[in-house]
Amino acid sequence: MKKILNDPSKAVFEMMEGIVNENKNLLMNEEMHFIYKKNIDKNKVSLISGGGSGHEPSHAGYIGNGMLDCAICGEIFTSPTPDMIEEGIKKIKSDKGTLLIVKNYSGDVINFELAKMLAKTKGEKVEMVIVNDDVALEESTYTNGRRGVAGTIFVHKIAGAAAERGWSLQKVKKIAEKVIENVRTIGMSFGPCIIPQSGKSSFNLNDDEIEMGLGIHGEPGIRREKIKTAKILVKEMLDIILKDIDFNNSRIALLVNGLGGTPIMELYIANKDAFDYLNKMGIKIVWNKVGNYMTSLEMPGMSLTLLKLDNEMEELLNDKTDAKGWK
Amino acid sequence: MKKILNDPSKAVFEMMEGIVNENKNLLMNEEMHFIYKKNIDKNKVSLISGGGSGHEPSHAGYIGNGMLDCAICGEIFTSPTPDMIEEGIKKIKSDKGTLLIVKNYSGDVINFELAKMLAKTKGEKVEMVIVNDDVALEESTYTNGRRGVAGTIFVHKIAGAAAERGWSLQKVKKIAEKVIENVRTIGMSFGPCIIPQSGKSSFNLNDDEIEMGLGIHGEPGIRREKIKTAKILVKEMLDIILKDIDFNNSRIALLVNGLGGTPIMELYIANKDAFDYLNKMGIKIVWNKVGNYMTSLEMPGMSLTLLKLDNEMEELLNDKTDAKGWK
Repeated sequence: MKKILNDPSKAVFEMMEGIVNENKNLLMNEEMHFIYKKNIDKNKVSLISGGGSGHEPSHAGYIGNGMLDCAICGEIFTSPTPDMIEEGIKKIKSDKGTLLIVKNYSGDVINFELAKMLAKTKGEKVEMVIVNDDVALEESTYTNGRRGVAGTIFVHKIAGAAAERGWSLQKVKKIAEKVIENVRTIGMSFGPCIIPQSGKSSFNLNDDEIEMGLGIHGEPGIRREKIKTAKILVKEMLDIILKDIDFNNSRIALLVNGLGGTPIMELYIANKDAFDYLNKMGIKIVWNKVGNYMTSLEMPGMSLTLLKLDNEMEELLNDKTDAKGWK
Repeated sequence: MKKILNDPSKAVFEMMEGIVNENKNLLMNEEMHFIYKKNIDKNKVSLISGGGSGHEPSHAGYIGNGMLDCAICGEIFTSPTPDMIEEGIKKIKSDKGTLLIVKNYSGDVINFELAKMLAKTKGEKVEMVIVNDDVALEESTYTNGRRGVAGTIFVHKIAGAAAERGWSLQKVKKIAEKVIENVRTIGMSFGPCIIPQSGKSSFNLNDDEIEMGLGIHGEPGIRREKIKTAKILVKEMLDIILKDIDFNNSRIALLVNGLGGTPIMELYIANKDAFDYLNKMGIKIVWNKVGNYMTSLEMPGMSLTLLKLDNEMEELLNDKTDAKGWK
């Protein structure tokens, strides 16, 4: 295993130290493994996300004005425990309440839900939304229902902007749910990543194979296919999304997301092919980002996310944020 | 070869299309393969960089207010030709003149120099600086003198901020040279990248080997070593830099740069170890970034860059820019 690593069991902790070293606006809770904004604004709704680590810059990279206030950092690909989440809720609570943004994985959902209930019994105002944007599978290895993947960062951004504008907890929750209703993602991979604790590949593919629809922890996807050109690959991925939701005559946001080990050049080639195909389908792309936003360690591959916009979501999407991961 | 790719010979062109799709403030010249800012301010010095592609977000990702005005995109790991560069100079010329920022590779230096001379004979005001921050080798495969690597982005940023403030061409050139004098980088890699045109690995390493001091095109480094912990690796890399220039009691900027295939988590672990070691050495880190800034396609590995700051450079480094790659 070739990694920049000391003790694998301390990888997440050391990463968190590296993150707060870089960003002087952040602090970390060493015992409970969460990172939070130094200056909490009590007059806006607080936003918390988190889950297993290994998806950087998700989620700690999205802490900043106009996005998250706190990210709970579980072990690699492992849900954080309820007490970690509850402590995070306590640390960044505001007079307006707290929204938890959770990717749909059973462990995350159970533990965030439990933490929410515990916080509520102590009088905190806490709500929760569950992101399930992955159209690949209706049920999967670690999930009831669809998985939550890269579309989650649109929820961070748009709900974060709404909170920054001073919206109430119920209104912030409602716009987060609107994003979730309108966002769809499909992923693909050329190969596995290696989890430091085990030192092993999470799965294997032949030299000419790709995995279509895999999850961000290397969970199986829809099917294995032969390698194809970028143009055909992108069309095939977009067709899976377009079958799921009617984007006709829509204005959309397009996110081309790298899984950690893909050259940025290749992501831009995919972006060009996605533009060409979506334009041909009469779908208007009014917002676009290309890069590593929701990764799986060093996995080679990418995901495509489409968000159907209305004026309200588009405006909030374009509000300013200083979160380092949102570039 | 598993890549998101159509025709390898059109990879750079298609990437450029993907880049201008994403960023509406940019335009591309299809014939001469350069990307430039839509709104050129004739009252500030124009900045051009470029070189071989495959190092994204370098350099097109640094086009924006307060950084570059134009990036010439050569084929992968291949210098752009003088006519491409000359056409770029013509396109973005300003009343205050143009500064070319060139990484020290023989092909780049010769071709940018030639373009500069051609432009000058046509009456353009053009100056050039050569970045040579790589402390690994005094001479290398494609270079006379030290190679130019990730430290180049500090030149983009600080000279870019100076230009944005309205400084003269001579003053912008002078501050660029001050950055070059004070910036040092060392890289390491766990393995090669694969160049689309050849489909082959640029070199091979054993399962327990790393290459210390390699260049951003996979050129050989100082030596091959056994894998070691992040802490020892980072110390060893920093020691090579610290032997080269006296940082004692200095305020520095620290860039932990991924080569394209390294998990962001690992870069943050390296960042923590670099902070620990540099603090112990009495070196004060006042500015820090971690991420993929100067890549080699999907190469696994990283580089560490230290820039010795004075007040002037520090202030310019912190000026605002909207360049997408600078996050």
